[in-house]
Amino acid sequence: MKLARLLGIDLPIVQAPMAGVQASRLAIAVSQAGGLGSLPCAMLSGAAIGDEIRSIRNATDRPFNLNFFCHAVPAFDAARDARWRESLAAAHAELGIDTGAIGTGAGRNPFDSAGADIVESLRPPVVSFHFGLPEPGLLGRVKASGAIVMASATTVAEARWLEANGADVVIAQGLEAGGHRGHFLSMDLTEQLGLFALLPQVVAAVKVPVIAAGGIADAAGVRAALALGAAGIQAGTAFLRTPEADTSELHRAALASDAARHTALTNLFTGRPARGIVNRYLREHGPMSELAPEFPLASAASAPLRAAAEKRGSPDFSPLWSGQNPGGARPVPAADIVRGLAAGIVS
Amino acid sequence: MKLARLLGIDLPIVQAPMAGVQASRLAIAVSQAGGLGSLPCAMLSGAAIGDEIRSIRNATDRPFNLNFFCHAVPAFDAARDARWRESLAAAHAELGIDTGAIGTGAGRNPFDSAGADIVESLRPPVVSFHFGLPEPGLLGRVKASGAIVMASATTVAEARWLEANGADVVIAQGLEAGGHRGHFLSMDLTEQLGLFALLPQVVAAVKVPVIAAGGIADAAGVRAALALGAAGIQAGTAFLRTPEADTSELHRAALASDAARHTALTNLFTGRPARGIVNRYLREHGPMSELAPEFPLASAASAPLRAAAEKRGSPDFSPLWSGQNPGGARPVPAADIVRGLAAGIVS
Repeated sequence: MKLARLLGIDLPIVQAPMAGVQASRLAIAVSQAGGLGSLPCAMLSGAAIGDEIRSIRNATDRPFNLNFFCHAVPAFDAARDARWRESLAAAHAELGIDTGAIGTGAGRNPFDSAGADIVESLRPPVVSFHFGLPEPGLLGRVKASGAIVMASATTVAEARWLEANGADVVIAQGLEAGGHRGHFLSMDLTEQLGLFALLPQVVAAVKVPVIAAGGIADAAGVRAALALGAAGIQAGTAFLRTPEADTSELHRAALASDAARHTALTNLFTGRPARGIVNRYLREHGPMSELAPEFPLASAASAPLRAAAEKRGSPDFSPLWSGQNPGGARPVPAADIVRGLAAGIVS
Repeated sequence: MKLARLLGIDLPIVQAPMAGVQASRLAIAVSQAGGLGSLPCAMLSGAAIGDEIRSIRNATDRPFNLNFFCHAVPAFDAARDARWRESLAAAHAELGIDTGAIGTGAGRNPFDSAGADIVESLRPPVVSFHFGLPEPGLLGRVKASGAIVMASATTVAEARWLEANGADVVIAQGLEAGGHRGHFLSMDLTEQLGLFALLPQVVAAVKVPVIAAGGIADAAGVRAALALGAAGIQAGTAFLRTPEADTSELHRAALASDAARHTALTNLFTGRPARGIVNRYLREHGPMSELAPEFPLASAASAPLRAAAEKRGSPDFSPLWSGQNPGGARPVPAADIVRGLAAGIVS
């Protein structure tokens, strides 16, 4: 329970931050239940982050986690963007999208000086990063604020790098995990490992506590992760059908269906590989495409497809993020999910 | 320990059959240590299988497992074969291979009537299959011989299919596993699951005992697999550096090196995806190639590369099969590996 002490929580159970499908409501429910609730900040403005933190603090005095992306923002490549739009032209036409109105915006912001200002002023107890760590000056400001810093590793090399560069906790993200892969040292997906192989190797390679993520959906999964040396676990998909998540009805229905048995890594939504349920968009354009612009630029032309299709009641172009073990995603309060996972902890 | 009773062994630990790197010596050592030793038969003649079984029976009265492939043999496609050879022409030239002498032979035989004759006459206690099950007539003969039948599943659908079609035990092969993937219902690799996700879903889907395979290398891995509902475990890579295995010195050295941290699924050796350590051949031609002929026909043109390179002391073109967790492969007797794994069994 060293991890729980470090994070100031009762149970070493972290709710995975899931940008786009949850905000403070889910974080509050998980933190109140004794785990660590997380607020994904990558798609929020600074003002919105402040509002969400105030909501959390109004509701609970338990610790919570602010999560940020820390990707390098790529230069806009007009030729590449044109090829990408061309490849989606038929879909844009079918869904009646005004392609002239498609911007070039990114939609996902990396942690920056404004983010560090927020951390310094609002002092979240825990801050986690995906896609590596911010540059040393920014990270120093986070650490000086007193926040415990967690970050995702998908290989042994990344775990070592994170420890050497200041992470207090490493999250070992197995290939089973839903949503965006956190790899940052190499873009070669063949280096990504299943949790059964990744977790024990990361535990052996670093001294900081290791949180296991990917495919953990119930008490048995928690027991297995702890047996492999994890100090705690992170679960995301398991919370997607709770009433406290903002998951769309289409996404909830997909998670509850047989379609959820088949997920794939796809870069079609944002430009970076992320695991989601295979739908028409993945079948027709991917799941991986060499045409997709670099993260997060691919989203400018893909997001309107999703919006238009969802307006017609179709999940064909939606990012139906899910891990490979969606059976744990039950339509019950988040506190019940936390309790179910906690049954796997032998104290 | 229901599985151990069913198989007549002391410990629910199966040594994965590994064609090309082991024969009866390893199977004997594992069976004598209380696990289930396996004899891979896919690359052996009927006479050789008989000899190996006699060697096993002379050495031990413990149960053992005969393993067969049961792929459909593809028709030879001359155009495809020519394209494949053309893609390897530079490597053939560099290694001084007489391409005129390359045959079209397969090198790996599926289970057939002659195999059933062997099973009926030599009565192995356990028979396992990879790539599905043989046709009902042949399988019926195996079952009528009294053998317990095991087979590999890489998806929930395959596990259900195997149970419905006569398998007494299902081996859930996680994506972490070394060597050939056992998938047979779909060739789409995005359907393959990490063991953390695959195992609990297979356990929930079938009534027969489930053996966990992939990334299990030590007692902690065994504990984790049992926590997820496995009735037993299968380990392969962990035995590759034992003196009883026939693993080449080049392969042993690769397993002991940092290179083993990076494995990939490759079809370059046989035409079917198999997990091995990334070497020059995988880097330059794959790891997956659309040019490789169907399994096992790709091996006709790739095997001479391996032979010639190994003669020069180079592992550049060798199939360095390994799972994603090679750290458990220690240069100790196989009985020590079995004992190490067995420490994870809580009785």
